[in-house]
Amino acid sequence: MSTQNIPYKIYLEESEMPKAWYNVRADMINKPAPLLNPATKQPMTLDELSTVFCRELAKQELDDTTAYIPIPQEILDFYKMYRPAPLVRAYCLEKKLNTPAKIYYKFEGNNTSGSHKLNSAIAQAYYAKQQGLKGVTTETGAGQWGTALSMACAYLDLDCKVFMVKCSYEQKPFRREVMRTYGASVTPSPSMETEVGRKINAEFPGTSGSLGCAISEAVEAASQDPGYRYVLGSVLNQVLLHQSIIGLETKAALDKYNIKADIIIGCAGGGSNLGGLISPFVGEKLRGEADYRIIAVEPASCPSLTRGSYVYDFCDTGKVCPLQKMYTLGSSFIPSSSHAGGLRYHGMSGVVSQLYHDGLMEAVSVEQTSVFAAAQEFAKVEGILPAPESSHAIRVAIDEAMKCKETGEEKTIVFGLTGTGYFDMVAYQRFNDGQMGDYIPSDEEIAASLAKTPQV
Amino acid sequence: MSTQNIPYKIYLEESEMPKAWYNVRADMINKPAPLLNPATKQPMTLDELSTVFCRELAKQELDDTTAYIPIPQEILDFYKMYRPAPLVRAYCLEKKLNTPAKIYYKFEGNNTSGSHKLNSAIAQAYYAKQQGLKGVTTETGAGQWGTALSMACAYLDLDCKVFMVKCSYEQKPFRREVMRTYGASVTPSPSMETEVGRKINAEFPGTSGSLGCAISEAVEAASQDPGYRYVLGSVLNQVLLHQSIIGLETKAALDKYNIKADIIIGCAGGGSNLGGLISPFVGEKLRGEADYRIIAVEPASCPSLTRGSYVYDFCDTGKVCPLQKMYTLGSSFIPSSSHAGGLRYHGMSGVVSQLYHDGLMEAVSVEQTSVFAAAQEFAKVEGILPAPESSHAIRVAIDEAMKCKETGEEKTIVFGLTGTGYFDMVAYQRFNDGQMGDYIPSDEEIAASLAKTPQV
Repeated sequence: MSTQNIPYKIYLEESEMPKAWYNVRADMINKPAPLLNPATKQPMTLDELSTVFCRELAKQELDDTTAYIPIPQEILDFYKMYRPAPLVRAYCLEKKLNTPAKIYYKFEGNNTSGSHKLNSAIAQAYYAKQQGLKGVTTETGAGQWGTALSMACAYLDLDCKVFMVKCSYEQKPFRREVMRTYGASVTPSPSMETEVGRKINAEFPGTSGSLGCAISEAVEAASQDPGYRYVLGSVLNQVLLHQSIIGLETKAALDKYNIKADIIIGCAGGGSNLGGLISPFVGEKLRGEADYRIIAVEPASCPSLTRGSYVYDFCDTGKVCPLQKMYTLGSSFIPSSSHAGGLRYHGMSGVVSQLYHDGLMEAVSVEQTSVFAAAQEFAKVEGILPAPESSHAIRVAIDEAMKCKETGEEKTIVFGLTGTGYFDMVAYQRFNDGQMGDYIPSDEEIAASLAKTPQV
Repeated sequence: MSTQNIPYKIYLEESEMPKAWYNVRADMINKPAPLLNPATKQPMTLDELSTVFCRELAKQELDDTTAYIPIPQEILDFYKMYRPAPLVRAYCLEKKLNTPAKIYYKFEGNNTSGSHKLNSAIAQAYYAKQQGLKGVTTETGAGQWGTALSMACAYLDLDCKVFMVKCSYEQKPFRREVMRTYGASVTPSPSMETEVGRKINAEFPGTSGSLGCAISEAVEAASQDPGYRYVLGSVLNQVLLHQSIIGLETKAALDKYNIKADIIIGCAGGGSNLGGLISPFVGEKLRGEADYRIIAVEPASCPSLTRGSYVYDFCDTGKVCPLQKMYTLGSSFIPSSSHAGGLRYHGMSGVVSQLYHDGLMEAVSVEQTSVFAAAQEFAKVEGILPAPESSHAIRVAIDEAMKCKETGEEKTIVFGLTGTGYFDMVAYQRFNDGQMGDYIPSDEEIAASLAKTPQV
């Protein structure tokens, strides 16, 4: 088919939507290292994981052999409310850049959670409901994951308890109200509702909280009632599995118009979007069916892939979760208060880490002022005001397109536009006012944090 | 085609998108009354209108005979960035209500302006650019129109000057920052930049402004520079013409699946969304080709159709704009500070007013607490967090669906979901906290305001 006929937005038909998630671990020669019990340093068993997660999700977490896992009908029906997500040809951006490159982006922001998080939220809520649970607990920082989970729980009539980092709870009241509108209970963390919360409040009066503390509270709250389980929005294998819907749809849309991608770009925080987007393409690489250049983009302020070490580390600051082998800056690393809250994580998904370690993908880091400049340039010609996280991918997509302009190469660039920035206007305001800075951690800072990773 | 095969979301192909706007005035037997010059009380001429509006838009304002006006290619290309908008089958809402009714909604919120306003903003900005103008001025209250215009002007590299009601400027900083990100200058009104602004500031020190004042400032600012024109987001004939894209797409999507609507519902403020949605359906009624029940939904706090009079009135509080014959509560009517800012207008589009006067449609008013209850119910099952304005239509769609449940009738209900509520969380918070009230103006209040309409 001629490229002349490619529409601005490629929408799959409902009948063309993927019916199964793709588990890239099945095709990986070097599997991600197993999660370890922090007490015994032995691999976590299904039974151990099932005390924290729903049993079906624990199974998915451990399954590194089944390539395709059918998506239950009720989840497919929910997906149909906001999926298929469009693969957009960025004609206007190409014109503005005057580049011979063809630029596409998979847009995951056309839903009220404003991001791809909903893809895994509905799956995790569904399995909780299937197991007969009353509800789930989770933590949220910036609030995208908490919003997505609230929506999924409202749809399935499941109780949803969100521990929201206190400073976000106070500074981002609108995200909080979206969650409340969907019926979730939102508690500022540290709270007086859990032992760990009371302890932290006593030790640090007036603390504004942290993600690590909120995780600990959510895990404790789930453990107090057998009708609850804890759920998490990134990093885990199960989350990447659910997010593979992004990559599967992207590939189906490209195939529909006989488009062959050259470069695939995604922003990288915990790895949920990136892993989901690239999975089917990496699968082709692993099976020797095709080759792609794959680029993970991380913030210069939190550069786990580009400057971290590939070692076992704690997933949370509170050190209650299993140990994971991953690219990490050390669980005691405190990222600067950059405006891409979704990328402020010290570690990286085990799957993404292993793929990167095996040379199946590249990684670059970018500074936030250049990210917001790209975001604004994109918004002005493509209409969509992007999330700060997503804008990391835009930055590198533009950079690659400008290289094509120099060389004259007509490369096809595909990037993941994970969400919208409608609840991030404080960050845009700082940018608009010329008050945004950059922060790059020193080698000493990273080394000091890495020195505290556990001995395994 | 069996209804079994109707997808959750009906997307037209790009090739199926309307290529011309539909001008319902051409099919109206009783045309809307002409705009009058407030000084002479004579119909406004093309030359008079062209001092305020771009000439091409002034032509469209006066043209009540041409049924179809081709959409320029550059506007079509812009539309392709966020259109066609989906016609969504509300399967989940139907199931929740357990109604035999089939419910569809045309969703206009999948763009960064968050509403249908972009449809006319790009058209008005395009004609300004074609005329060789440097820029446009406008006012904005809640901020949706200002955002849409900022996006359109950024795309066309046109200067955009927005006068934002001061209390909104201060209380809705996020909307303001979206506009600034798109390069618009946003000035709190009343400002010290215009004569009228300085006068009002001197007369009422510390005033938080009003829409009427902001209109006057925007008109004055445009008149000070021959390279500028004033643009408006609702009420005008030209705006309804551009917004006919909503109805045309809706009708095309219904026709694609052989669906015959029984009831069509839209929220009504100035009439831009409602008029655009219903135009093609009203056209069929006028030509005797089909019949539909058409319902305008307005807030009980600002009931221009249901409790106003059909007379000539000022369009703005400052009384600088032409006189329009319309259903009005009187230009001195001060709507209560309800949370549907987009519906707080004392009058109504001349086209919609005439159609209502001629019995081609019905109107109902609803109270805001019941509107937010409908919004929340909708959000929980359909995913989308709706704008307060749009939720007026949801309220009545649910009411009609529940009547079908009583009678067992399988009616097909279509309503316009004009936008998202992501910048309206203060209102949702009040609702979530149980602190939202209702306000219904007294007969005396309306009569007193109507007594001040001009003698024509």
